[in-house]
Amino acid sequence: MKRSILTAALALSFSAGSVSALANDHSDDPNIIYIIGDGMGFEYISAYRYAMSDLETHTVAPIEFDAMLTGAATTYPEDKTWVTDSAAGATALATGEKTYNGAIAVDNDKHPLKTIMEMAKENGWATGAVSTSQVNHATPASFFNHHPSRYEYNEIADLIAEQVVNGKPSFDVLLGGGRSYFERDDKNWFEILPDYGLTITTDLNALDEIDETPVLGAFAPKGLPFAIDGDVDALAKMTDAALRLLEPKEGSFALMIEGSEIDWCGHANDIACAIHEMDGLNRALEVVRDFQQKHPNTLVVMTADHSTGGLTLGRDGDYAWYSDRVMKIESSISAMVSDLLEMDSDKWATYVADKVNYELTEEYVDELMAAADENEEDRKDALHDALVYITGDITGTGWTSSGHTGVDVPVFARGPQSEAFRGYMDNTDIAKALINIVK
Amino acid sequence: MKRSILTAALALSFSAGSVSALANDHSDDPNIIYIIGDGMGFEYISAYRYAMSDLETHTVAPIEFDAMLTGAATTYPEDKTWVTDSAAGATALATGEKTYNGAIAVDNDKHPLKTIMEMAKENGWATGAVSTSQVNHATPASFFNHHPSRYEYNEIADLIAEQVVNGKPSFDVLLGGGRSYFERDDKNWFEILPDYGLTITTDLNALDEIDETPVLGAFAPKGLPFAIDGDVDALAKMTDAALRLLEPKEGSFALMIEGSEIDWCGHANDIACAIHEMDGLNRALEVVRDFQQKHPNTLVVMTADHSTGGLTLGRDGDYAWYSDRVMKIESSISAMVSDLLEMDSDKWATYVADKVNYELTEEYVDELMAAADENEEDRKDALHDALVYITGDITGTGWTSSGHTGVDVPVFARGPQSEAFRGYMDNTDIAKALINIVK
Repeated sequence: MKRSILTAALALSFSAGSVSALANDHSDDPNIIYIIGDGMGFEYISAYRYAMSDLETHTVAPIEFDAMLTGAATTYPEDKTWVTDSAAGATALATGEKTYNGAIAVDNDKHPLKTIMEMAKENGWATGAVSTSQVNHATPASFFNHHPSRYEYNEIADLIAEQVVNGKPSFDVLLGGGRSYFERDDKNWFEILPDYGLTITTDLNALDEIDETPVLGAFAPKGLPFAIDGDVDALAKMTDAALRLLEPKEGSFALMIEGSEIDWCGHANDIACAIHEMDGLNRALEVVRDFQQKHPNTLVVMTADHSTGGLTLGRDGDYAWYSDRVMKIESSISAMVSDLLEMDSDKWATYVADKVNYELTEEYVDELMAAADENEEDRKDALHDALVYITGDITGTGWTSSGHTGVDVPVFARGPQSEAFRGYMDNTDIAKALINIVK
Repeated sequence: MKRSILTAALALSFSAGSVSALANDHSDDPNIIYIIGDGMGFEYISAYRYAMSDLETHTVAPIEFDAMLTGAATTYPEDKTWVTDSAAGATALATGEKTYNGAIAVDNDKHPLKTIMEMAKENGWATGAVSTSQVNHATPASFFNHHPSRYEYNEIADLIAEQVVNGKPSFDVLLGGGRSYFERDDKNWFEILPDYGLTITTDLNALDEIDETPVLGAFAPKGLPFAIDGDVDALAKMTDAALRLLEPKEGSFALMIEGSEIDWCGHANDIACAIHEMDGLNRALEVVRDFQQKHPNTLVVMTADHSTGGLTLGRDGDYAWYSDRVMKIESSISAMVSDLLEMDSDKWATYVADKVNYELTEEYVDELMAAADENEEDRKDALHDALVYITGDITGTGWTSSGHTGVDVPVFARGPQSEAFRGYMDNTDIAKALINIVK
């Protein structure tokens, strides 16, 4: 007995009962839109809401997250730790089984675990995923592929391609980044796969022209640019296209949507970056909300695989989080570092003050200039650390880690059978409740 | 319109409708048990669950919190900040109105705000509060008193006493700490108040003998000793006594239970201390659960006023939180510091290793010994900081602040009308939903 979540267990046993009564008749199955905010702990919801709100008047912004909360979930992996990585987290959410950190839909013995998307496909559902990460990154990969190591990006791209070559892609729509893993020197899948019936697109702004599936979209060499530096509507655009392509198909569909780079901004301890990724996900949620209003037999379930960075609103004893200052920052730390490395250090302070829209204190300038004394190899990290300190101190944002944390994450649900997602759950039980619908 | 929480607003408007239909007939009113974990953000729930669980086998402990979760709440005060203190937080939860940090049930203009306990009393309910803090501390005080500043402890004690002298105590049962504020050199209320019909007790283990109300129990000079250093069952004992005394009264009762010192351990960045306070609250929840099973017309609602300390499970890039090591720590940091200040510094390392049950690294010993070089005035703080570092590093616990944070807090509910507490809410809406029942 690995869990103790009495209400969730009860809710599940009831829902399992009622669902199994439908098991032989899929005609009423709802569409499933399964959304994962990678790294999106509760603190990211709070931060995003307040960043969109007015600190002076306390006018609180209406955000989609607040309209959908139903509970919280535990996230620990099979390993002897309470802290999961994104691969074990995604595997739990895709298969209902815990596994080791690093695993892509394989168990502790590296045997494949059937995913909800594979089950859906077998039962005649249309399937898809959209993400701001590369399509072969841990989360989307764990829904369609099986591999002992998440870091073998080329091999996972090959697995996706081979499904197409074999005439059995487990997806109808797969949109995100990752072009460089398919267009490689040793192998250019994008030249090969059209012959096997795959539509390929690399232009995010030409998605409207796509009307054939299966389709693979790869809109960046690896992950898409951060929303703060690029197109905050990217995830909403991909979501809109995926729903347009999946909805007309016969029967139900299952679509996974990942706000992938919330996690990446969390790893970088970059609060403005994280808020804009949350905004990108919120825009996708608005697309989902509008779709659900038109197609009420659609179950929307959202959660996070874990939380990242140990984000806190407030730090160092100060009873404040300066949401207004967060929203004045115009660039990710990563983009600032790239720019700074290209310019003379005597221009750094002016550049940073301009990007963060805040007059740098002497202490902040000292932090920056300390990086100038580092050798070339260490300068990048030193600049990153200086900018984490400066943006954190300006905004009152605390961080405790460059990695993940073990705190519970929020669960959201709306639509038919959403009552199965109330209260505390284990992450595997979210998947099991959804698998009960598709199988 | 200060909030955007659509589902909660809808739930409230429905419940307000159904409650107002009962407004002239209080005969079916449920008892209300209103529980506040001071400083108890989601991360404290996760930490407590895992601390009680087995890291090796991932056998997850059944904790009361997990059986009751229904949603989350925003906590910001009336001040132009997203981060509340415990007084504004308690005022919001007691009156349904936001106010400035520091206020005890008064508004921004320092005018009294009527509390749920005062309304309940007016309508013939029995009322009470139990807390591990002094009874005149911010949270319990905000349910029964009105004062422009939470820090005027003697004056707030006087307000409580004067209610008794005037023959109109707003409480039937008031149990916690705070004896030193009533037995003062300038005024000894404990000699005066029995003549006005108040039963006074100062022995936590003689609560069974009390059978008269109104009763004031003060079991420590200020707050009760931390659970890790004292009696982890203190809150459960007070809860049991309060329910025994309130239940037989005519009509319904409203009882506020505060796990007060979760917050204090959070301020001290003391993880073992916080876990044991959570355990004390969980034991009180078990008493509440048993009572509710016997008296099903009882609504139990629990939340936190804010989160404290910026606690995270995991830190510094390590994907681990060592729950087993947390449970091996035998003393609060505060108690360790007191002991260390009384002994020669050459004994410090051995003493600390013994108390934390962990072999100190050279780095840890250096951290401790650095405090020996401080002058007497600063030594206490230096020892505290060293022990925060050592216990945090051993257990993988991160902290970002000695103060509060602005992240949303969990909401729990069980019993009649508990559906009004689902999804996202503002803290004032929790109070408003409860006030709708008592008024």
